[in-house]
Amino acid sequence: MLDLGSRSYPIHIGKGLLDRSDLLRSAIKGRSAVIVSNETVAPFYLHRIRPHLQDLRLGEVILADGEQHKTLATVDAIYTALLEGQFDRNATLIALGGGVIGDITGFAAATYQRGIDFIQVPTTLLSQVDSSVGGKTGVNHPLGKNMIGAFHQPRAVIIDTDTLSTLPDRELSAGIAEVIKYGLLGDPDFFSWLENNMEALLDREPDALAFAIRRSCQDKADIVAADEREQGRRALLNLGHTFGHAIETGLGYGCWLHGEAVACGMLMAARLSVDLGWLEPLAVERIESLVRRAGLPTEPPAALGAARLRALMSVDKKVIDGALRLVLLRGIGQAVVTADYDSSLLDRMLERALAA
Amino acid sequence: MLDLGSRSYPIHIGKGLLDRSDLLRSAIKGRSAVIVSNETVAPFYLHRIRPHLQDLRLGEVILADGEQHKTLATVDAIYTALLEGQFDRNATLIALGGGVIGDITGFAAATYQRGIDFIQVPTTLLSQVDSSVGGKTGVNHPLGKNMIGAFHQPRAVIIDTDTLSTLPDRELSAGIAEVIKYGLLGDPDFFSWLENNMEALLDREPDALAFAIRRSCQDKADIVAADEREQGRRALLNLGHTFGHAIETGLGYGCWLHGEAVACGMLMAARLSVDLGWLEPLAVERIESLVRRAGLPTEPPAALGAARLRALMSVDKKVIDGALRLVLLRGIGQAVVTADYDSSLLDRMLERALAA
Repeated sequence: MLDLGSRSYPIHIGKGLLDRSDLLRSAIKGRSAVIVSNETVAPFYLHRIRPHLQDLRLGEVILADGEQHKTLATVDAIYTALLEGQFDRNATLIALGGGVIGDITGFAAATYQRGIDFIQVPTTLLSQVDSSVGGKTGVNHPLGKNMIGAFHQPRAVIIDTDTLSTLPDRELSAGIAEVIKYGLLGDPDFFSWLENNMEALLDREPDALAFAIRRSCQDKADIVAADEREQGRRALLNLGHTFGHAIETGLGYGCWLHGEAVACGMLMAARLSVDLGWLEPLAVERIESLVRRAGLPTEPPAALGAARLRALMSVDKKVIDGALRLVLLRGIGQAVVTADYDSSLLDRMLERALAA
Repeated sequence: MLDLGSRSYPIHIGKGLLDRSDLLRSAIKGRSAVIVSNETVAPFYLHRIRPHLQDLRLGEVILADGEQHKTLATVDAIYTALLEGQFDRNATLIALGGGVIGDITGFAAATYQRGIDFIQVPTTLLSQVDSSVGGKTGVNHPLGKNMIGAFHQPRAVIIDTDTLSTLPDRELSAGIAEVIKYGLLGDPDFFSWLENNMEALLDREPDALAFAIRRSCQDKADIVAADEREQGRRALLNLGHTFGHAIETGLGYGCWLHGEAVACGMLMAARLSVDLGWLEPLAVERIESLVRRAGLPTEPPAALGAARLRALMSVDKKVIDGALRLVLLRGIGQAVVTADYDSSLLDRMLERALAA
């Protein structure tokens, strides 16, 4: 349960939950629903949830797969489908897919007729541990990632761990990046657990996956409940993201997976923290080792160039009145949000990293 | 003051308020602002507020004038301008213009970087008494008016009654339509005052205008404070709007002014209320007389056809699970929201009205 007063909602995690019609139905208030999914996910799972909704007026919108479709134009296509199907403000959208589907569908729900209900049914590890919980929705703009969006909480999050069986290895690793993030930013015991259980996660051992998802969602829910609108502590969740978004934007959406960029971004944040004298070099070695074992990149793409990466970072949402706030580390499990650092050390770190 | 807890904001009404830098500045928290206006309004008033903002980083976005530009594409153009100008989430948007500018700017503010501050500086009577207060923002979709949007409250509303001196007569009348609405839906004394003072309003007597604006804003603020998200009583504010939106959509945005369509829609609601036996015929005569004296249309455009108007009404946001809720009248100053009426009488009224 994510506790947000009247906007609280349950987060269900377990095996075979897609077959549980009660979880889905208890989160639907009206008499109509529209499933939004993509061409990759729909063939696997759409037929699993459709039977639960037979007595509702049901619509389906199947989008092309990929971050490059996370645009305002795709949201507009959803509006059109909803209007053509005469779905009103009591309709519920169901996001069935990864983070891109969840973000797009959530934003469509936030802005269709000034806000309708939606449910998250995330089918990738990344979306299960990150984007499906917390109510951040949105799409990309050609000039910056996630620059268009709204806070809009789902009515429920339903995580069926079985869906990970069809997830490509590369996407599993990308999800593990965000799992590592929770350990790194505020949960040192979890970080140690990951050091001891990385192979089990990569082997998709059900108990290990379930534990990692539950712990990640709990860590995230605690932070979001304390700071829903990111006035303060919630910004810690952006560890690695300012660097990561710049990498994603610079390469063009879809080249690197989000989790890959975040993993690399976390390491860049850690290295800058060492340069600032805030973090022991030994900690970076532990982080780098874990990131590498997870099959994730440890260096940014050199072709991007330090100057371009720096410029891309300066349009980040974490820029407040011109100062670039970063999430940096004082230790493993001890992240801080700050604009109070020597920015020449940031420039130097970028030059070093991108000369590699 | 509109009392919404932590989202409360002041509504300033008076002569010469555009020259008061304190009103604008006290509502701006960051160090940058972007004025959004249009080609018609900017030449008159932009230079009046620009001097108050000289120590801020200031951007200006000047849009084409007209309801036909109230689209997602225009909002996207604002995002682009904000990103190109590197305006961050501490920037404040200032909507300088009529309802279209306020709605577009408010929606851009609601969705840029998941929500930034904005200020309403409405320059038409319609926007001063209606759209600038209450936090409804949004744009049109080709398949329906205001179908894309969000609730997002401004930080302040600054109404300078002097701006009405440049307003064309037709737009003044369109604004009076919404003023009449407040009397009709819940303020019978105000309705009587309007019957006694319509000529003073049309002659733009400053005291009469100021009284009508203040009373309208107060009536609206009372309703919104009780029901910010339109779960109940706020829907009364849609009196005349379901009919009106259908007329606007059917004719193409921009043919009839919004207020003209609402005036005609209020009369249609009143006539249906008489047909249902809920309202005295004498009341309709009073309403029709007042609407006519205000220079507003009393009949829908016959060319539209009853069937098409009925179809357009059925995509209205007031449709809940298939039932079309309407705002109808039990008396002057006594509106009700209901889906519990004989819909064959609605069809018959439309056929009568559109055969004229």
